[in-house]
Amino acid sequence: MSEEKFNQPLGGNQMPRFSGPGTMFRLPSSEITSDVEVGIIGVGLDIGASNRSGTRFGPRAVRNESVLVRPYGMYTKAAPFDSFQVADLGDVAINTFSLADSIKIIEQHYDKVMASNIKPITVGGDHTISLPILRALHKKHGKMALVHVDAHADINDTMFGEKECHGTIFRRAIEEGLVDPNKMIQIGQRATGYSSADFQWAIDRGVRVIQAEECWFKSLTPLMAKVRKQIGDSMPSYLTFDIDGIDPAFAPGTGTPEPAGLTSSQALEIIRGMYGTNLIGADLVEVSPPYDSSGNTSLLAANLIFEMLCSLPGCIRR
Amino acid sequence: MSEEKFNQPLGGNQMPRFSGPGTMFRLPSSEITSDVEVGIIGVGLDIGASNRSGTRFGPRAVRNESVLVRPYGMYTKAAPFDSFQVADLGDVAINTFSLADSIKIIEQHYDKVMASNIKPITVGGDHTISLPILRALHKKHGKMALVHVDAHADINDTMFGEKECHGTIFRRAIEEGLVDPNKMIQIGQRATGYSSADFQWAIDRGVRVIQAEECWFKSLTPLMAKVRKQIGDSMPSYLTFDIDGIDPAFAPGTGTPEPAGLTSSQALEIIRGMYGTNLIGADLVEVSPPYDSSGNTSLLAANLIFEMLCSLPGCIRR
Amino acid sequence: MSEEKFNQPLGGNQMPRFSGPGTMFRLPSSEITSDVEVGIIGVGLDIGASNRSGTRFGPRAVRNESVLVRPYGMYTKAAPFDSFQVADLGDVAINTFSLADSIKIIEQHYDKVMASNIKPITVGGDHTISLPILRALHKKHGKMALVHVDAHADINDTMFGEKECHGTIFRRAIEEGLVDPNKMIQIGQRATGYSSADFQWAIDRGVRVIQAEECWFKSLTPLMAKVRKQIGDSMPSYLTFDIDGIDPAFAPGTGTPEPAGLTSSQALEIIRGMYGTNLIGADLVEVSPPYDSSGNTSLLAANLIFEMLCSLPGCIRR
Amino acid sequence: MSEEKFNQPLGGNQMPRFSGPGTMFRLPSSEITSDVEVGIIGVGLDIGASNRSGTRFGPRAVRNESVLVRPYGMYTKAAPFDSFQVADLGDVAINTFSLADSIKIIEQHYDKVMASNIKPITVGGDHTISLPILRALHKKHGKMALVHVDAHADINDTMFGEKECHGTIFRRAIEEGLVDPNKMIQIGQRATGYSSADFQWAIDRGVRVIQAEECWFKSLTPLMAKVRKQIGDSMPSYLTFDIDGIDPAFAPGTGTPEPAGLTSSQALEIIRGMYGTNLIGADLVEVSPPYDSSGNTSLLAANLIFEMLCSLPGCIRR
Amino acid sequence: MSEEKFNQPLGGNQMPRFSGPGTMFRLPSSEITSDVEVGIIGVGLDIGASNRSGTRFGPRAVRNESVLVRPYGMYTKAAPFDSFQVADLGDVAINTFSLADSIKIIEQHYDKVMASNIKPITVGGDHTISLPILRALHKKHGKMALVHVDAHADINDTMFGEKECHGTIFRRAIEEGLVDPNKMIQIGQRATGYSSADFQWAIDRGVRVIQAEECWFKSLTPLMAKVRKQIGDSMPSYLTFDIDGIDPAFAPGTGTPEPAGLTSSQALEIIRGMYGTNLIGADLVEVSPPYDSSGNTSLLAANLIFEMLCSLPGCIRR
Amino acid sequence: MSEEKFNQPLGGNQMPRFSGPGTMFRLPSSEITSDVEVGIIGVGLDIGASNRSGTRFGPRAVRNESVLVRPYGMYTKAAPFDSFQVADLGDVAINTFSLADSIKIIEQHYDKVMASNIKPITVGGDHTISLPILRALHKKHGKMALVHVDAHADINDTMFGEKECHGTIFRRAIEEGLVDPNKMIQIGQRATGYSSADFQWAIDRGVRVIQAEECWFKSLTPLMAKVRKQIGDSMPSYLTFDIDGIDPAFAPGTGTPEPAGLTSSQALEIIRGMYGTNLIGADLVEVSPPYDSSGNTSLLAANLIFEMLCSLPGCIRR
Repeated sequence: MSEEKFNQPLGGNQMPRFSGPGTMFRLPSSEITSDVEVGIIGVGLDIGASNRSGTRFGPRAVRNESVLVRPYGMYTKAAPFDSFQVADLGDVAINTFSLADSIKIIEQHYDKVMASNIKPITVGGDHTISLPILRALHKKHGKMALVHVDAHADINDTMFGEKECHGTIFRRAIEEGLVDPNKMIQIGQRATGYSSADFQWAIDRGVRVIQAEECWFKSLTPLMAKVRKQIGDSMPSYLTFDIDGIDPAFAPGTGTPEPAGLTSSQALEIIRGMYGTNLIGADLVEVSPPYDSSGNTSLLAANLIFEMLCSLPGCIRR
Repeated sequence: MSEEKFNQPLGGNQMPRFSGPGTMFRLPSSEITSDVEVGIIGVGLDIGASNRSGTRFGPRAVRNESVLVRPYGMYTKAAPFDSFQVADLGDVAINTFSLADSIKIIEQHYDKVMASNIKPITVGGDHTISLPILRALHKKHGKMALVHVDAHADINDTMFGEKECHGTIFRRAIEEGLVDPNKMIQIGQRATGYSSADFQWAIDRGVRVIQAEECWFKSLTPLMAKVRKQIGDSMPSYLTFDIDGIDPAFAPGTGTPEPAGLTSSQALEIIRGMYGTNLIGADLVEVSPPYDSSGNTSLLAANLIFEMLCSLPGCIRR
Repeated sequence: MSEEKFNQPLGGNQMPRFSGPGTMFRLPSSEITSDVEVGIIGVGLDIGASNRSGTRFGPRAVRNESVLVRPYGMYTKAAPFDSFQVADLGDVAINTFSLADSIKIIEQHYDKVMASNIKPITVGGDHTISLPILRALHKKHGKMALVHVDAHADINDTMFGEKECHGTIFRRAIEEGLVDPNKMIQIGQRATGYSSADFQWAIDRGVRVIQAEECWFKSLTPLMAKVRKQIGDSMPSYLTFDIDGIDPAFAPGTGTPEPAGLTSSQALEIIRGMYGTNLIGADLVEVSPPYDSSGNTSLLAANLIFEMLCSLPGCIRR
Repeated sequence: MSEEKFNQPLGGNQMPRFSGPGTMFRLPSSEITSDVEVGIIGVGLDIGASNRSGTRFGPRAVRNESVLVRPYGMYTKAAPFDSFQVADLGDVAINTFSLADSIKIIEQHYDKVMASNIKPITVGGDHTISLPILRALHKKHGKMALVHVDAHADINDTMFGEKECHGTIFRRAIEEGLVDPNKMIQIGQRATGYSSADFQWAIDRGVRVIQAEECWFKSLTPLMAKVRKQIGDSMPSYLTFDIDGIDPAFAPGTGTPEPAGLTSSQALEIIRGMYGTNLIGADLVEVSPPYDSSGNTSLLAANLIFEMLCSLPGCIRR
Repeated sequence: MSEEKFNQPLGGNQMPRFSGPGTMFRLPSSEITSDVEVGIIGVGLDIGASNRSGTRFGPRAVRNESVLVRPYGMYTKAAPFDSFQVADLGDVAINTFSLADSIKIIEQHYDKVMASNIKPITVGGDHTISLPILRALHKKHGKMALVHVDAHADINDTMFGEKECHGTIFRRAIEEGLVDPNKMIQIGQRATGYSSADFQWAIDRGVRVIQAEECWFKSLTPLMAKVRKQIGDSMPSYLTFDIDGIDPAFAPGTGTPEPAGLTSSQALEIIRGMYGTNLIGADLVEVSPPYDSSGNTSLLAANLIFEMLCSLPGCIRR
Repeated sequence: MSEEKFNQPLGGNQMPRFSGPGTMFRLPSSEITSDVEVGIIGVGLDIGASNRSGTRFGPRAVRNESVLVRPYGMYTKAAPFDSFQVADLGDVAINTFSLADSIKIIEQHYDKVMASNIKPITVGGDHTISLPILRALHKKHGKMALVHVDAHADINDTMFGEKECHGTIFRRAIEEGLVDPNKMIQIGQRATGYSSADFQWAIDRGVRVIQAEECWFKSLTPLMAKVRKQIGDSMPSYLTFDIDGIDPAFAPGTGTPEPAGLTSSQALEIIRGMYGTNLIGADLVEVSPPYDSSGNTSLLAANLIFEMLCSLPGCIRR
């Protein structure tokens, strides 16, 4: 079939969904090579997490549950696997005994991904991983717009004296000029902090913070229209999605859950709302399988990753 | 008491809720006999399921959790056990080693149920079971209106070459003339598929498909008013409710969960909205207890079955 | 720091969140003494529960998950630990072999708490515990206004012949004049009962019952404005929050869950909406850890307790 | 078939194991009547337990898992359902809000069982239930020999001031003369206590205590030969089996587990070793399903109950 | 390194154990080709199971947990990956809607494996899969010796009227002459059955049945010496290992668990005891991940599969 | 009472076991002070673990389950709380973002413990923590005898290039002269490794390695007599107990489980067998609560810690 010039997920009528390769969406796996346009990458790091650990198993669990995802979006009409050559690029070989070393390893890995012109869709791992990814992407793309979905702002200066861990990364990203704070939108922040300064540092630099309370009981489609307008369609944009932005009812399997978050439908609206921006990569982080007895957090994550593919520029809709 | 001319659920002040018989709502069990007006029937089949199994334990688990359901609807003011003679008719003795054989056994079982003029309320089991049930009901009632709540359309032509399994049944039901596609409404479909054709075959035959996206953030009471108008109050109507129509947050214990589905309040609105149609039976399928660590999916299912009773024509409200 | 004249939760940069003392919010523990203004008290009673047990472990589990709560409300801007001297007063030594005896022990314990002028925030435990607490508070404060969030009305006359257990307590509270039924609001009641009388007894005495159906799909902030108006700002008010008022999707770990309840965001709105009343105490009951595989029900409960602190009169906002 | 003069468990070739009635071994249920020779009785009491609760769901869970038990013992060659008329007599309607009242209710229930000359095999529930059972049996049978398998001696004088709860019952049984301490054997006691007096009171009265340490790494068949010799074959004997006598590896789902207990093979040896005594009843207590994620503790319990049937005098072997 | 002429498991110092490919032991995957000497094959079939389902996820779960297995046996000193070219051959694309069709598909798949001279080590799936595997192996190897570890004899004539399902396969294997009953040893059978005939049919044909009771409390090394003597070192031998042969304490995650089975140390002794026979294949079946909350049943299975590799003739020891 | 000159665990008749302070054995908590003779210390570190994480929650979970432990050993007749002043010293404030920094923090913490002449009993945490503990103890006590129970030898030179993590620590301890390899006994090693060198490095230096296979099916009391003889009664001895030395059936909740390990009875024999040596400290590590659904691994760990107290020199037996 002509559309099948690209890799396709292994279909449920070829191999039962509970069998087949352990890759994301049961896609072929691949080395980092310029034949690949979009690469799914796992980063099983959890030593940057401050409360519950377990996100080291996030990539494996999300891949396991991704078997249920089919290649076409019934509502968006998006057909990503007919639009791009997508492959599973496997995992980054982090050093699980050193957070600092792992951050370097991740950056180097994504330098190679950038050298092959691959758009990375990453599954974590704790949120620390977004910092080295942004550093590598910045070398190629320059300053980026950023949409950041999360229960937390992740803009602490330090945690336990450390400059780089899952709660400090966006302060570093702004300080290092990786992202443009005037084109940075944070969605879903809520619950408790140390003081109003927890959000203010970012707001003072131009970041737009949409607390969860502003999202309750309504569609976020209008918000995303504003976000697209703010970002525009040419500046490279990156989406970093912490699963804890979503309410623990929908995503119980995470390490620092906070009550009263986004619904999974709002999560879909946010990701779908990125279509129309110049999305050059995305990540989905903080899925912690030991706290996800049904596997449904991983399943949700796999669907969110599918939606990320659908929102890449050039994704065919039909 | 005069109302107690009919079977009553064993009450919490007669026997603690955690004790007593393992029947639905702790009702008396009964053979198939014309003394029974409404029969609760279990069909513990899961060999028609394509992803996770486990629905074979659905009937047992839903009965176990049904102990919490009391005989009166506090909002609807419905009193089904004062309206009908309801009994637990036990389980169908399917052949768990043969899907084809089980489909025949189920049809024959429901032929007997029809011969005794019992309205069946069925708890599954995977969705395959609805096909033989519809076949048996069709012999008695002729072509039926159908309200079908589900994350999936279940209108594949074949799956892995098979014509009859949990993803093909409504194509068969339309092809065989069991249901009137112009009086068939599908609610809650979403997520991913193979192509737009996944929904189109049914739409082309007149089926109304209400994707989950159309349901987000709002009451479905207005929708159900339209549904009732479309169906009318005389044509026999059947409600088939796949628990995966509901979001996995509310119903984690199911085999092919899809994110961003209906809320449990919407589920209640749909079932309550059937009151006023000529409902001649209903089923609740796809509860998979091994994925339901709290038991709350089964508990929800038991409540939905209670609401089905309340929506049968003639159910007293007071 | 000047604000730190009061006890502070042990911070995540002093001790990792997964370590440190097992007290609520990792606050200092204290005896009952007039140095304490607000006391967190655990009552691990579950022998008043009619369906699932396990709430005896509620206090321990909520304390365990409370480690994630930080001292400042990002949306309310409330800073309770800069407003009051808060301490963890430990648990009541109930007699787990006798409900009647335990009810007396609890009342005596709260008599002492009242004698020290401490505002009690209690974590249960099944809902039975609210009755002896109200009795003790009534001796000091007289008739109270009551906001009661719950899936159930808890106004049975007896259960299994018993006058005092988790389903009868608010009938007793009204009969004994502990609360003013004209200033009593019940929110979240739903699902099934024995007859319309289940709610009517309270309504007939002036209680306002807001069934869950009236809450679906919308903010409860307007409702709480009305509640505050009804209660006023001077009469002592008490908030009793049964976690099963919230939908089992958000709070699976409870003993008598009912589908289609409040969202956790509505729960926050209700508690935040108490600010402005003369709140003299509150409780959070019916968390049953054995049914909460992720721990997230306990986490939600810990956050609700934090919000209760924020709604006490005099809590600083900044 | 001639042997099938008695009730038979519903077979796996008549109804799949995951379906069928919720009775023990899928036997017919029955009222208390002299047509029944051996009655299975559930007592879902857990308010006599000092640590974890949950045994209230023991009878339901053990019945659920009993579906796997077939009617013949492959090693013992025992055929109990060809030997006796066995039926499931349902549950005792205890008062879950009062331990004292429940103890009376249980005794009265077993008085009726005794009046019908039924040998009771009871599934608990916490161990408190054995006391009223022994009281009722004593009225009919007089002083009994007792084999007591347990991690604990259960001979406290009081617990929290109470004379009757799950840790005091065998002191009461000896004091009341229900059992003959010279024909009382306790097996499996271990772990920690308050002092050597924890065991000594019973030893001083003639009870034989076989600590778990004496059982490690070896068969208990020789021990049981001695036990049979001590008890003799005429004196009425009763077997009370606390599942926590078995190591938590084999029986995790219990409320007061203690490490380094009996193996499940030793448990079988003990029960099988009762054959040859004049066994007039038995109970299996302390299964707590919320702590039994696989269901295998309940499954073990169901098998132990089957073995109890096989050890009743007169059970055919062939 | 010279030994590394063959595929090696991905090491823990190259890639963290929680990351890397989803293959067994993180070996390279391969097509069916004569370059492979030993092939690991998954068969995710569970529709031949009579009680709990879920073994369809067995291959995925065992592969997931196999990451902990290292390439050298510390006690046996076996180095299988220096002895053979081992690869993960992926899964058989069974038809999950038809047991009969799946049995044919499996046989055809193993015909191809045989045509490439690959020794298959299979991970199931329910025990039904061993029948088509034996059929394919028989075509190449002729009549085989068989060591069968299992709680059950699996020699029913039919189940629910069906000739081929997980409880009938070894009757079929004997009837069809696939195995030599005089060189067939069954180990671990126990618990309950329908009559003594359950074991006798096989015994009458020469099969040696070692009931679990004969194995309790002792090493099985002496037994395996006798088994090796009985089988000899030239006749092709096959090992079929049902995980339920092992006690549920060690292997909770299975579908028809029976108490008082083998220990995991005995399981190792049995598999290690096969070294010295002409082992031409083996399978490990009946791991049901939904009942294995810790993952440790799958981990045990992965180790058993490693031991199977170590017992293949020619495996280097050093 | 005269014996109660020391801290006593809060008793079950003073406060129900499910309530009370979250300290080990519900003992009083204390600062590091020379008033304390034996200090229980938690170290919630898991970033030194190579497979599953989660041991960061070990101290909290073991304390939670320790409520069931009573003050007297029924078999050993040991009364540790009448022998020593024991207190819970709380947790070490490790830096969860840096393993290297945490190792330093731990050593400094134990330097203070040594300065106060407290015997430390530590609950981990992954096994990395034993290295800094040994370093601190060595400064005070000089070269120590070591009994090391573990599934693994933990003598890798490096892991992923790192010199200090949970798999290298005993190589470091030997290299640094902290322990005397001629008085070092490793018990329980098993399963798979990279080569025979995995054990040989230690053996070559004089360490005695008792593989698990040598322990199967028998008492370890004779082994411990030899161990005591080898160690003598004067040299300071330390016991480091990795819970994965015990079989996963008994201790499922751990990060690198290996099949066919020690029984929990053997674990007791080992710890009890240390009595008579000059035990100056001990640790219990690698309990990972997320993999321990019943809590029973933590319960076992709490009992092992109690037994450690009982084996300290001078512990009264009566």
